[in-house]
Amino acid sequence: MPGKVLLVGAGPGDPELLTLKALKALRSADVVLHDDLIGPEVLHFVPASAQVQNVGKRCGRKGISQEEINALMVNYALLDLQVVRLKGGDPLVFGRAGEEVEALRRANIEFEIIPGVTAALGAAAAAQIPLTHREVSSSLVIIPNHHAKDSDSDNWPLHLPQNATVVVYMPGYHYDETAQKLRNSGLAAETPCAIISQATSREQQVYSTTIENLSSAPKLPAPTLLVVGEVARFATQGKASSTFAAQELISIAAEAEFLESLQNQEIAE
Amino acid sequence: MPGKVLLVGAGPGDPELLTLKALKALRSADVVLHDDLIGPEVLHFVPASAQVQNVGKRCGRKGISQEEINALMVNYALLDLQVVRLKGGDPLVFGRAGEEVEALRRANIEFEIIPGVTAALGAAAAAQIPLTHREVSSSLVIIPNHHAKDSDSDNWPLHLPQNATVVVYMPGYHYDETAQKLRNSGLAAETPCAIISQATSREQQVYSTTIENLSSAPKLPAPTLLVVGEVARFATQGKASSTFAAQELISIAAEAEFLESLQNQEIAE
Repeated sequence: MPGKVLLVGAGPGDPELLTLKALKALRSADVVLHDDLIGPEVLHFVPASAQVQNVGKRCGRKGISQEEINALMVNYALLDLQVVRLKGGDPLVFGRAGEEVEALRRANIEFEIIPGVTAALGAAAAAQIPLTHREVSSSLVIIPNHHAKDSDSDNWPLHLPQNATVVVYMPGYHYDETAQKLRNSGLAAETPCAIISQATSREQQVYSTTIENLSSAPKLPAPTLLVVGEVARFATQGKASSTFAAQELISIAAEAEFLESLQNQEIAE
Repeated sequence: MPGKVLLVGAGPGDPELLTLKALKALRSADVVLHDDLIGPEVLHFVPASAQVQNVGKRCGRKGISQEEINALMVNYALLDLQVVRLKGGDPLVFGRAGEEVEALRRANIEFEIIPGVTAALGAAAAAQIPLTHREVSSSLVIIPNHHAKDSDSDNWPLHLPQNATVVVYMPGYHYDETAQKLRNSGLAAETPCAIISQATSREQQVYSTTIENLSSAPKLPAPTLLVVGEVARFATQGKASSTFAAQELISIAAEAEFLESLQNQEIAE
């Protein structure tokens, strides 16, 4: 069987938020190239025989370049290996999957994209914030605060739609600057905001404020996400819902084995 | 154990795009209240003993009101039943979950929100469209075309951000009107578009065009989604990836049973 690359979304953190398709992909991987922020619980699903490599481009660390990641994917696939390129959230939202797809097409490597629960959805569910609401928010805008370093311009939009929920990914801690950008895009100073830290994990925290008071918000542990809009009023501390215990992980792995054995039986029959 | 309501996202259609958490919720449901467009493969996971009710508000059908759905959730939970409110995609994106959350809070019913892969992510993965791209798109806007009938105003935004990918949910077939709205919000006539029909299903189709030629696009089968922006150039016909065969569904159900028995053993020990 020729090598194939699967670009897989791992979801927002909680390993139970993997999709069944992502789980199957991990269970059948020969090589996993993963970003930072992929938890050990998720990597638990990968067979012990598979090669697992962190290709994360963590800030401040002299890391691997995008071109090197592209070359790794292509070269492993040419060796007839099943390659999983594992990204947090959804692979097509701020994941530079566009460049990876182009590289795979150029090299004529078969690939498939397996979507995932993007961070905004995970965080909103955990903090019980409806991202749209018939009365106060009719659209959803997802935007990063920190843009690619080597891009020429800051692409922050001139206007943000009114009556929208704006979710800022990677907001960082320069809250005063972020507040100014939001104001410049036309949002009112009193617009509610929620900072959600380590969404869907046991350590999740939610801090509620407004754009004008954002600059005095605490620096909660990364990864964080900023939800801006009238719907942020609904934020609760929530509780991170139940996550896997180690024994459960082993059970799920056993399940997957069990499924495989059933499928193999069918093939044999 | 007191009754609890789980607001669960079923993902974009392909049952393999359910999360593990959603699967667990379905397997433990006493009552499932589901929207239209939830496929039979997804409902297959529900125990035979559970009560399953379609509470979809299909256009043109004199259906159940939001207030009635809220009352059903609350009343079943008060009967100490485990209630799953199952919605296509993610429950917090255009799902009126905001109103359901308010009703549950008012009635002091315990609830949990289980996020799902929203349609934009499923469709983009299947059509291989990166929703953001370092060079051409730095943000994502998700917006419905058809607004709630009883809302006073059309909330289409005055300005859509430049360099954004705009995904129009429920675009309908009045393509000329939609094209006009997109133009009025500042997008160029030659902006690429892709209409994605029945995303992530075997019947998926992708039609590529531009805003100015949108009005001559074919009326592909619902549900459809419209992706607007430079990234839509990347759209391929793609292939819907493998979906479950009936036997596989049964295997997954068996897997879930297997997990349960393992967990029960642990509890017994």
